[in-house]
Amino acid sequence: MSAPFADRRTLDFLLFDWLQVASLSALPRFAEHSRDTFTAALDTAWQIAEREYAPLNARLDADEPQLVDGRVVRPAALSKARRSALASAHEAGFIAAAFGSEWGGMQLPQVVAQACGAVFKAASVAIDTHSSLSIGVANLLAAHGTPAQQARFLPPLLAGRWFGTMVLTEPQAGSSLAEVRASATPRPEGGYLIRGQKIFITAGDHELADNIVHLVLARLPDAPAGTKGLSLFIVPKIRVDSGGAQGAANDVTLAGLIHKMGSKGTTSALLHFGEQGRCVGELLGAPHQGLACMFKMMNEARINVGIAASVLAGAGYQQALAYARERLQGRLSADLATPPVPIVRHADVRQMLLVQKCIAEGGLALCLQGALWADQHASAAVAPERRRAGLLLDLMTSVIKAWCSGQGRRANALAVQVLGGYGYTRDFPVEQHYRDNRLNSIHEGTDGIQAIDLLGRKLAAHEGEAFELLLREVEQTVDQARRIAGLDTLADELAQAWAELRTTTRLLQVALTQDAPSALAHATTYLQVFGHSVVAWVWLRLALRALPCVDGAEADFHRGKVLAARFFFRHELPATGPQHRLLRSLDPLLVELDDAQL
Amino acid sequence: MSAPFADRRTLDFLLFDWLQVASLSALPRFAEHSRDTFTAALDTAWQIAEREYAPLNARLDADEPQLVDGRVVRPAALSKARRSALASAHEAGFIAAAFGSEWGGMQLPQVVAQACGAVFKAASVAIDTHSSLSIGVANLLAAHGTPAQQARFLPPLLAGRWFGTMVLTEPQAGSSLAEVRASATPRPEGGYLIRGQKIFITAGDHELADNIVHLVLARLPDAPAGTKGLSLFIVPKIRVDSGGAQGAANDVTLAGLIHKMGSKGTTSALLHFGEQGRCVGELLGAPHQGLACMFKMMNEARINVGIAASVLAGAGYQQALAYARERLQGRLSADLATPPVPIVRHADVRQMLLVQKCIAEGGLALCLQGALWADQHASAAVAPERRRAGLLLDLMTSVIKAWCSGQGRRANALAVQVLGGYGYTRDFPVEQHYRDNRLNSIHEGTDGIQAIDLLGRKLAAHEGEAFELLLREVEQTVDQARRIAGLDTLADELAQAWAELRTTTRLLQVALTQDAPSALAHATTYLQVFGHSVVAWVWLRLALRALPCVDGAEADFHRGKVLAARFFFRHELPATGPQHRLLRSLDPLLVELDDAQL
Repeated sequence: MSAPFADRRTLDFLLFDWLQVASLSALPRFAEHSRDTFTAALDTAWQIAEREYAPLNARLDADEPQLVDGRVVRPAALSKARRSALASAHEAGFIAAAFGSEWGGMQLPQVVAQACGAVFKAASVAIDTHSSLSIGVANLLAAHGTPAQQARFLPPLLAGRWFGTMVLTEPQAGSSLAEVRASATPRPEGGYLIRGQKIFITAGDHELADNIVHLVLARLPDAPAGTKGLSLFIVPKIRVDSGGAQGAANDVTLAGLIHKMGSKGTTSALLHFGEQGRCVGELLGAPHQGLACMFKMMNEARINVGIAASVLAGAGYQQALAYARERLQGRLSADLATPPVPIVRHADVRQMLLVQKCIAEGGLALCLQGALWADQHASAAVAPERRRAGLLLDLMTSVIKAWCSGQGRRANALAVQVLGGYGYTRDFPVEQHYRDNRLNSIHEGTDGIQAIDLLGRKLAAHEGEAFELLLREVEQTVDQARRIAGLDTLADELAQAWAELRTTTRLLQVALTQDAPSALAHATTYLQVFGHSVVAWVWLRLALRALPCVDGAEADFHRGKVLAARFFFRHELPATGPQHRLLRSLDPLLVELDDAQL
Repeated sequence: MSAPFADRRTLDFLLFDWLQVASLSALPRFAEHSRDTFTAALDTAWQIAEREYAPLNARLDADEPQLVDGRVVRPAALSKARRSALASAHEAGFIAAAFGSEWGGMQLPQVVAQACGAVFKAASVAIDTHSSLSIGVANLLAAHGTPAQQARFLPPLLAGRWFGTMVLTEPQAGSSLAEVRASATPRPEGGYLIRGQKIFITAGDHELADNIVHLVLARLPDAPAGTKGLSLFIVPKIRVDSGGAQGAANDVTLAGLIHKMGSKGTTSALLHFGEQGRCVGELLGAPHQGLACMFKMMNEARINVGIAASVLAGAGYQQALAYARERLQGRLSADLATPPVPIVRHADVRQMLLVQKCIAEGGLALCLQGALWADQHASAAVAPERRRAGLLLDLMTSVIKAWCSGQGRRANALAVQVLGGYGYTRDFPVEQHYRDNRLNSIHEGTDGIQAIDLLGRKLAAHEGEAFELLLREVEQTVDQARRIAGLDTLADELAQAWAELRTTTRLLQVALTQDAPSALAHATTYLQVFGHSVVAWVWLRLALRALPCVDGAEADFHRGKVLAARFFFRHELPATGPQHRLLRSLDPLLVELDDAQL
């Protein structure tokens, strides 16, 4: 049995047919680009991912990194192969893919760069994470760094010689960053002495690069309490002088490696900064503005989590589909003289496959839509369009992160189920997908935190303008689909679903002003409803694009999109009905209960 | 943080308050027993589980068994500790717990024996599986073996000197046992030469016992095709002579060990029978009746899977609850001068805990109810009562297996989520629970197979009498609860839910006679609806028992049961609404789709 790690045809469909990204070349920033250059970038990413990333993914899982004499150790051949894989991607320009030519970048749109990232993630999240983190650090430096900081740190990061990390969490400060204690004390000679213990630092140390650029949240001596007292610091593992040359070690100690359920290809580190009082950092952005700065990177990371969760769902779906087409088991009739059929013929297996397809393709579509909004926010021709896109992306970031993570895990559980006993063995990749994807609901803000962010913050921002914009987008889709035979029923159902969502949202917004804790108690359910409503909208748009092609050269491919849309509307979207009723009841049980009764 | 592996108080509540198992001593078979003897058995099981099982569970996961020179090898100290743990349980009589005194058994009711098994499973499924399988084999021998077979095999099995297995699956015959090819050829000197390859044999080989008694499905030379041509054979790893003495090796080769996601404490083996033409078995039961015989053991195994899934959910819940009470994170107000609160105060965490509580306690309650039906089926005073219990158990077996497995996995995913980043590490047991419990939806018949069994077979058996009996049970609960202030609303909701289930069931039964494949395409959704409706019934019964005690000495404990019932009715049961509509639509999408479109 052989299955691709991703569905390239669907990726092209999403980019070129659905989002029509080739039209981005009409914008000045992307004037040098065309569908051909975008395709060339995707082809290159695919080749590297297929040849160099995918073959390492299971090995990186099996050979967990060890901490030996304060260093991260892996089998030498494996380390070498991974360095080589990363070098191939970086030499091909994929860290600087969306950067401008002034930095030697390809100046690709975010949506194309993210699609390339999706290809790498589908082949091996564990390898790609290093590039993704470097891209995030580079973007943050480009947005908030001084020209001198950019000159020293961006070139080695963009070339893939150094890697980046985001360093927020401490043992006592996970979901609540208000508790961060790491300190930054000004030095007479300039810079800051950094001191503190950080935990769960993804790629916090490894054997892959000359240097690691940590972006660390810490408190200045005069800092106010809580998150408003956090500042951001550039803290390289090896010191970097004013000319960009590396110097001595910077007193960043690898104190431990976390032993995880999955995602074993990427270290998760316990780091001690300044144990010997010699860890020096430099301020990035304004004092006490660290969290706002970090959120630039965090929001990108949340989209990356959504993509990773979706492509893991997609990789599992490809495996399950290939297995279901080959595995002979059972018959469609009671006649034992007939041969067994492939299990893809059994309705229960089809149901499991369609759920996976809806999650994997719908989730990835939503993530790419988010990336396109990022492009439009940065580069659209007119200000209202830039504003519109920025608001939509801001509203949707937490939904992208949490919906794709929770549903992606569900998809991977079903992929294991399709393979049955074989799926539970480590001989098939679905087992690793299931463990790897479990992380995505936890890191970069748990799904519960995303839900509170959506209901408690994002909806109300800019006086609810983003939600109004989204309602208008949905209305447009409904109007289009109502005119198309075969989609008109789905259009009505989508309109109904969003009318319900609008009503529930209004009611919760009023409740928030009256009794915020009681309203926020329903945040997780609200995000689930919101996510399913959004993905229904995405699927109707995908069906709108596919329907004209259902009798064309790729009839099955396009019919499959329409089929999946219908399936989502019949089997998935109706689940929001009782959730709406629960939300509107403002059931106080979760707030009022005495936890001694648990 | 320290958390118990199970909630003993709830187990006692379920047995003594809810199911009132002490009243079983009124039956002649259990006349020697009383609440005191039941409690003593549970106490002994708890002590052995706590002292000897629980400390090994994580070690057995970390030190996976190796295949060396055809033998299963583990670290010697670990093997020794496990042998000692099993010996403690067996010497205390727990394999023969439900056997009669004529076999040296404790003659305990099934429900008490299963409750003791639940305690062992909660501490370590990996250890208990060996005992559970031996019990299953012993029960099958007791039901279908000749007196001579019983005399030779039962004593060493019941003493725990030998262990048992059930050997069905072959590489080409998983869900479809019709494809089983293993053969049994009569020998002139008596017995049968067994030949065939079997896979996924739980505890198929290990280092724990003198001998292993395999119960093997194979075909006699004149066997008809399909499952009606399967016969059952006793095939010991080491030959056993007519006097019960062990002889030479019986040509059963350990050809491989499966490397699994979890459940690593129990081997899953690839076994070759008769590679050298010297594997001898003896027929158990009648020729061609092997599957019917095996289903005696299989049905017990399905209840065991339900118990394992439920107690793993419960173990995860205990961990998550203890963590949530200790872990300080975030505040309930915006005032940073107030100290952080334990996360059990946050509504989102409470929601995750209550879902786990509902699944763990509701699932275990359902399993114990099933075990009580087994007792009533075997030992009730009057024939109609025996018949009633047998029918209910038969109807519910697939629901117990599949609902507890699927929902148990969901509970364990939430336990990981409550612990956040820590939950994803191998430093806390919830990580292992999550991997271990993934198996339960797969083995002993996948959840999809259970669903087809329920809808396609069990409902219609005995002209639907079992479902009618269940409806009457539910009506009684509704009638009782309607008279109790505080539960009357739940009573109405339960009545409504079951009226819906009755309507949907009737409709599907008609559809089955007209177009079976289209109706069976909805089997999995039907089982989910059925399961949630049954567990709602269980929770209302639990609330009925707890409500009179909510102002007593253990007020919080009993209020917690009523709280969980309310939560289940508000947050969980309503999900069945859209599922009923889907089922009644008889949506043909899954049957009609062209799988080239996937």
